[in-house]
Amino acid sequence: MKYPNGVKKMHKNNVSYANRGMTLEEDINVTNKYYLDNNIGVIHKKPTPITINKVDYPSRLEAVIKEAHFNTPSTTDYNGVYKGKYIDFDAKECKSKTSFPLNNIHQHQIEHIKSIINHGGIGFLIVRFTTLNLTYYLDGNKLISFINDNDRKSIPIDYFTKEGILIKDRFQPRVDYLKVIDEVYF
Amino acid sequence: MKYPNGVKKMHKNNVSYANRGMTLEEDINVTNKYYLDNNIGVIHKKPTPITINKVDYPSRLEAVIKEAHFNTPSTTDYNGVYKGKYIDFDAKECKSKTSFPLNNIHQHQIEHIKSIINHGGIGFLIVRFTTLNLTYYLDGNKLISFINDNDRKSIPIDYFTKEGILIKDRFQPRVDYLKVIDEVYF
Repeated sequence: MKYPNGVKKMHKNNVSYANRGMTLEEDINVTNKYYLDNNIGVIHKKPTPITINKVDYPSRLEAVIKEAHFNTPSTTDYNGVYKGKYIDFDAKECKSKTSFPLNNIHQHQIEHIKSIINHGGIGFLIVRFTTLNLTYYLDGNKLISFINDNDRKSIPIDYFTKEGILIKDRFQPRVDYLKVIDEVYF
Repeated sequence: MKYPNGVKKMHKNNVSYANRGMTLEEDINVTNKYYLDNNIGVIHKKPTPITINKVDYPSRLEAVIKEAHFNTPSTTDYNGVYKGKYIDFDAKECKSKTSFPLNNIHQHQIEHIKSIINHGGIGFLIVRFTTLNLTYYLDGNKLISFINDNDRKSIPIDYFTKEGILIKDRFQPRVDYLKVIDEVYF
């Protein structure tokens, strides 16, 4: 990014790992790469779902998409395998200090997490309260319980502190969610 | 599709299910939908991996991708969960009557299948010899063995008949690969 008068904004010199200008998505991507490189688990982010309308072929070997639209995702963003188990989750950032708005998750994503659990997979959310620098694991079962038992349109942070598990910020892996999976499932 | 003089080309009246103008990808997509609708398993095709270079916002609610490129896939196309197990595979069509060219699979896709198996997942290929109307399941272990034991650049069809499992064409589910998984793994 270019700033006026040659000023470069520095993002990465902060001491706190959580506050170093990395998004949750970036943190999870480097975490997944760490898991893969160290033969711990195979978990990938799915590509963004799009519908392609127009493709140009400027040369025989090159194809350039000239028009496409974003689709509403029908599943979650991340999945893979860990210790033989199917792992499936979504990662969400949230600015509020008090609650996580449920309109961050589509209805069919919730249905997807339910199906995953019914078929013996492990489904969950990773939610980062960015203002508080707190990242929580919320098991799919706890998410479903909350939705079934409440009419609220957001999950209060209390529910995360009581029913979720805090994922402490580390150097690497940055967001060690498989350690939580170990505690909960193995 | 509109044809001149109101003539409509019929695709779906053939008796053979394999020869009805459906691609293997289409067959697998409807098979996965059948599995999902009938609560058998949750398996999805991943979106096409792309890099987005330019996005326009013609209105506040609309985003249109104006330039993007296709990426080389680093994983396989399909994954999900069945009876608690992680399922991961790629589906390939092949015109040859005698062999399946290995350049249909990228090296990192082979590495991906190896990793999947090492972590307790089930990895495999579905290969359709389109000219012969034959669709085979080839287990990831058999694929890896072949590559380790041979210098050949293609897998002869004999290897599929001996080491693979023929997936018979059905009305629905069209390509019942989970039945094969049942035989091999459960």
